[in-house]
Amino acid sequence: MTTSTQVQLVSRPKGWPTPEDFRTVQVELPELGAGEVRVRNEFVSVDPYMRGRMSDAKSYVAPYALGETMTGGAVGRVTESTAEALPVGTLVLHGLGWRDVAQGPADQFRQVAEIPGAPSSVHLGILGMIGLTAYVGLTEIAHLQAGETVFVSGAAGAVGTAVGQIARLLGAGRVVGSAGSAEKVDLLTSRYGYDAAVNYKDAPIREQLPAIVPDGVDVFFDNVGGDHLEAAIDVFNTNGRAALCGAISGYNDVERPAGPNNLWHLVSKKLTLRGFIVGDHAHVAAEFGEKMAGWFAEGKVVFDETVVDGIENSVEAFLTMMRGGNTGKMVVRV
Amino acid sequence: MTTSTQVQLVSRPKGWPTPEDFRTVQVELPELGAGEVRVRNEFVSVDPYMRGRMSDAKSYVAPYALGETMTGGAVGRVTESTAEALPVGTLVLHGLGWRDVAQGPADQFRQVAEIPGAPSSVHLGILGMIGLTAYVGLTEIAHLQAGETVFVSGAAGAVGTAVGQIARLLGAGRVVGSAGSAEKVDLLTSRYGYDAAVNYKDAPIREQLPAIVPDGVDVFFDNVGGDHLEAAIDVFNTNGRAALCGAISGYNDVERPAGPNNLWHLVSKKLTLRGFIVGDHAHVAAEFGEKMAGWFAEGKVVFDETVVDGIENSVEAFLTMMRGGNTGKMVVRV
Repeated sequence: MTTSTQVQLVSRPKGWPTPEDFRTVQVELPELGAGEVRVRNEFVSVDPYMRGRMSDAKSYVAPYALGETMTGGAVGRVTESTAEALPVGTLVLHGLGWRDVAQGPADQFRQVAEIPGAPSSVHLGILGMIGLTAYVGLTEIAHLQAGETVFVSGAAGAVGTAVGQIARLLGAGRVVGSAGSAEKVDLLTSRYGYDAAVNYKDAPIREQLPAIVPDGVDVFFDNVGGDHLEAAIDVFNTNGRAALCGAISGYNDVERPAGPNNLWHLVSKKLTLRGFIVGDHAHVAAEFGEKMAGWFAEGKVVFDETVVDGIENSVEAFLTMMRGGNTGKMVVRV
Repeated sequence: MTTSTQVQLVSRPKGWPTPEDFRTVQVELPELGAGEVRVRNEFVSVDPYMRGRMSDAKSYVAPYALGETMTGGAVGRVTESTAEALPVGTLVLHGLGWRDVAQGPADQFRQVAEIPGAPSSVHLGILGMIGLTAYVGLTEIAHLQAGETVFVSGAAGAVGTAVGQIARLLGAGRVVGSAGSAEKVDLLTSRYGYDAAVNYKDAPIREQLPAIVPDGVDVFFDNVGGDHLEAAIDVFNTNGRAALCGAISGYNDVERPAGPNNLWHLVSKKLTLRGFIVGDHAHVAAEFGEKMAGWFAEGKVVFDETVVDGIENSVEAFLTMMRGGNTGKMVVRV
């Protein structure tokens, strides 16, 4: 009998989630039915959007069910199979989340490529949903043009490190970002190709941003929300566009903070603010996959991961990520 | 010698403009040069955007020069001409603003049609920039689809009365609006084809809006800003779009008010907020002109004007309009 260790949500967090909102359970897995696979996960993803699903507010995705295992991106290897298309040993991506062993109908699993010299977790990161999110935001949402200036908030996070590099590869003129520590700020310019970066904990971002964008900002890729959006609106050039990917600064707020006090610039500078969800742009995945595979193979893209070991530490990994304790993609190694 | 009575800006208002920020002068006009016309204005336009130009903040148009005559839309008739294309008697539209007699090179004036049964001021309103603004906001900016629900703030104003009717003619499913008096609210439903309307002075718009949009809002056409934008964000359906045309509620604020406290919905509901200026969409003018001329001739469009007599009362007309004292387009009859 195979057992699977799984992490379940048991109560809806008010404000910051706590370990008590979750439980770890052992589930006995049945024998495989016809056309099914059993997968030993290698890496499980923890992502900011999951905080939204822990609440039961109306949103673009259904809330997580209480008492059920947390779903989300994961990558693993087939260990048992009754499905011809996915033989034992196949590397697969799936959405079954926080568990060490996953199993189910083969159509819930998608084969992904083995990437020489890279861990399979890249399929949860720069080669997967994270990279696609960055690409969609810059192209489909913000319509980045060559030569333009891009400002990225939360630039040292998983999406942010991808945005800076992809913006550069797409021809951006100047790329600047914000992050929450001196170390991260250094990485942005030394490793991720940012032209300049600031630590938003040093002083209000609104005070620091103008100095690093002397010619204003054309595209703002927002992972943070709140004061970062306000700062961007201040320095936007006419016809500036914001791709709003996340607002991690407010995800755990119980009180709703006041919004930017400069929204009149939306009219005066003819700005566009647009929220998006990568899932709506699956039609771009093929185009992205081809370009990114090329860039990756040519060594034009770097990535970092912050790895936490052990499926039972998924909650800790999630909370650390929410507090900004990661550089690059946060993953749980099973 | 012909003299022209003109109204000039002499100081930049802080907060609400006062009559002391303006002066009325008599200007002696020179003889016409070659290719010029002299025009007796019939109507002069006063519009919310003019408040922005009275300040010297960076904006999409240059600020008005101090000591010079206020420019803006006006319609009049040629009384003297050395330009073959615009003989005496021609009805023309121009941008020379707050004066009773205008003159200059013929290319500053554009011939417009005589509309049977309508005053020439319609060219400042529903057949002119006002109607085009409504049309551009609904089509180019908000991409209104047939069957969708539209919410219009400041719905009894010049642009708002046009938006409601044009939205209906473009196939909107439900059209609702806000206005600042019981009389205006009545007009919205009895005359302008709105399905429902509320008086935003009765109670916070955020509390009143949900009841009149049981199925949410797909398109928000904003003439007001501030609390109206917040209310719209609350009730937006997924993929909702806001066309931000103006923010008259804040034009005279000295302190900048806090913005909406629900901007996280921009991501969670995948909303788009987009500010626009009609002047950027001149390429739509021909398409609009053709459609609107047809609707107008078929009696499908109604319009109201609030008329103030006398060019020397332009400032009063402007301030009355800013305070919401108009229904439909506010014009000065010369």
